[in-house]
Amino acid sequence: MNGYTIAVVGATGAVGTKMIQMLEQANFPINEVKLLASKRSAGKKALFNGKEIEIQETTADSFENVDIALFSAGGSISKQFAPEAVERGAVVIDNTSAYRMDAEVPLVVPEVNEEAIRSHKGIIANPNCSTIQMMVALEPIRKQYGLDRVIVSTYQAVSGAGVSAVKEMKEQAQHMLNDEPYEAAILPSGGDKKHFPIAFNALPQIDLFTEDGYTFEELKMINETKKIMGDDHIKVSATCVRIPVVSGHSESVYIEVKEDGASVASIQELMKNAPGVELQDDPDNQVYPTALEAEGKKETFVGRIRKDRDLDKGYHMWIVSDNLIKGAAWNSVQIAESLHKLKLIKTTN
Amino acid sequence: MNGYTIAVVGATGAVGTKMIQMLEQANFPINEVKLLASKRSAGKKALFNGKEIEIQETTADSFENVDIALFSAGGSISKQFAPEAVERGAVVIDNTSAYRMDAEVPLVVPEVNEEAIRSHKGIIANPNCSTIQMMVALEPIRKQYGLDRVIVSTYQAVSGAGVSAVKEMKEQAQHMLNDEPYEAAILPSGGDKKHFPIAFNALPQIDLFTEDGYTFEELKMINETKKIMGDDHIKVSATCVRIPVVSGHSESVYIEVKEDGASVASIQELMKNAPGVELQDDPDNQVYPTALEAEGKKETFVGRIRKDRDLDKGYHMWIVSDNLIKGAAWNSVQIAESLHKLKLIKTTN
Repeated sequence: MNGYTIAVVGATGAVGTKMIQMLEQANFPINEVKLLASKRSAGKKALFNGKEIEIQETTADSFENVDIALFSAGGSISKQFAPEAVERGAVVIDNTSAYRMDAEVPLVVPEVNEEAIRSHKGIIANPNCSTIQMMVALEPIRKQYGLDRVIVSTYQAVSGAGVSAVKEMKEQAQHMLNDEPYEAAILPSGGDKKHFPIAFNALPQIDLFTEDGYTFEELKMINETKKIMGDDHIKVSATCVRIPVVSGHSESVYIEVKEDGASVASIQELMKNAPGVELQDDPDNQVYPTALEAEGKKETFVGRIRKDRDLDKGYHMWIVSDNLIKGAAWNSVQIAESLHKLKLIKTTN
Repeated sequence: MNGYTIAVVGATGAVGTKMIQMLEQANFPINEVKLLASKRSAGKKALFNGKEIEIQETTADSFENVDIALFSAGGSISKQFAPEAVERGAVVIDNTSAYRMDAEVPLVVPEVNEEAIRSHKGIIANPNCSTIQMMVALEPIRKQYGLDRVIVSTYQAVSGAGVSAVKEMKEQAQHMLNDEPYEAAILPSGGDKKHFPIAFNALPQIDLFTEDGYTFEELKMINETKKIMGDDHIKVSATCVRIPVVSGHSESVYIEVKEDGASVASIQELMKNAPGVELQDDPDNQVYPTALEAEGKKETFVGRIRKDRDLDKGYHMWIVSDNLIKGAAWNSVQIAESLHKLKLIKTTN
């Protein structure tokens, strides 16, 4: 059978393990899956379509004969190995922030800007998790009514910080439930000086702070939105907050549209027909999205759409999606599907 | 000693128990504290200044000789007994939503509009928890620069829904940590049809829904802000969300001021000098407020003050306070202190 050889870099991580699951559901033929990780994880095994695959250490030579390499092992690993993979003929789909704002690298949410992948030069970037779900929901509104302004406050899950952060949250929670002392060594950001407990708490810091008081996570949402929508004039601001949820980012999003004619009903109608979106918006019956319900699903769920009480063109909504699935693994596999669908990739063997 | 007789109605509740603690720290003389609750709780005992007090069933006659009655036993209890208390000469400080929007009833955050209590006709309303902390932080900014607009997304603690909701969250969390089935019977709102788990989740519903898609909690923030600040023209919108925190509401607040001249530094300076506010805003050293740190404290903590990147008069900030303390019990006791300080109350005995 003529199929692709796919490499997953970071195969033991929170996103990597989901990438393997999502590849099982991909709409393209796969000949071989190579699972790559750090030396520490080499020799471990994982299942792909019921078959055991041994995890190998990532080296430059790992990418020989690889057609598509999905990276999710941190920015420094991408910087080190993505060019090696490209040199060996692979197309890299990178889920780190390493290349996202590189003008040469398309930043793609297939429901929004699939065509951008045509211009790739070997690397395609997968946007930040919190950006992706917002793009899927807002793009149909932008296309219909224009988008002047976005203000988002996030309620982000701990799995976005990796498996060890989830483990720590659960340990903290158990200690707190037992009225025992607890420790914090990971969040808000592995590379930062101080650490705070996340269990039964809310941390208004994701990633490091920049000079103007915003975090890098907030700047990712701001800058990636403009790049993906191809419009530098959209006003975007973000406050990114970690809350004690395992998986599933929630977002309180305020938008101002440009054109007349929008209404709650018309935006609901757009959401019903939007690819990748499921409308869950029926306040009378308490229908709205929640993180626990979204966990494990591919869709972006939108609810609580309501008009601002003061501004005619202002709307509020609540956008939820599984940060590991649509926010990371599924979006990456969708990009691979797009490469296949648009015939932008050939098998090397 | 010439002191007041104080009644606490709802003395066994999440707020009532904090009211007793806060009364121990009040700046006025107390002769007697009467602890009132439902028939079910009558006979239980609680400590006030180390002295055991038996809890009595609330009846109209409970308010004989009471000077100040603090109510926090739900709106229907306030509707039933507040007029009885007033008839017997007590001043009622009501922590429910029963009278807040009544034009005859002052709605008071002492740091903001203490003078409003002079017009009371027997009942003074304590604002909603999520409103109070926002008012304490925003009023100094409004006074200096005017306030055109507020958009707030809340991260509200479970204790706002009472002791039983906290108990249920902890049980759910324990079951989830054990990978066991769990139940939800209380949140998002005791009086609503459906219930959702709050542990490791975020619920975009607090209180019931109104006809236009906003919840009553959101309308409380919108309407109470205008009443407390005495300005119907401030544009206010709110998205109120419950997260798995025991006590301590966090708020992501966006404001637009009216006048020129504001800056991050000038707003930080206002916060440093604002009564009831503690500035915790030093991103370089990861200093910002969190719910866990605010728990048990009387202050409202403000941090992450930063300029909107697109609008010159737009600012974002993160406001945290203990919803049971400043958001309820402490603000009520502060109102009692104001009554005493402004000589608006005499002892009946």
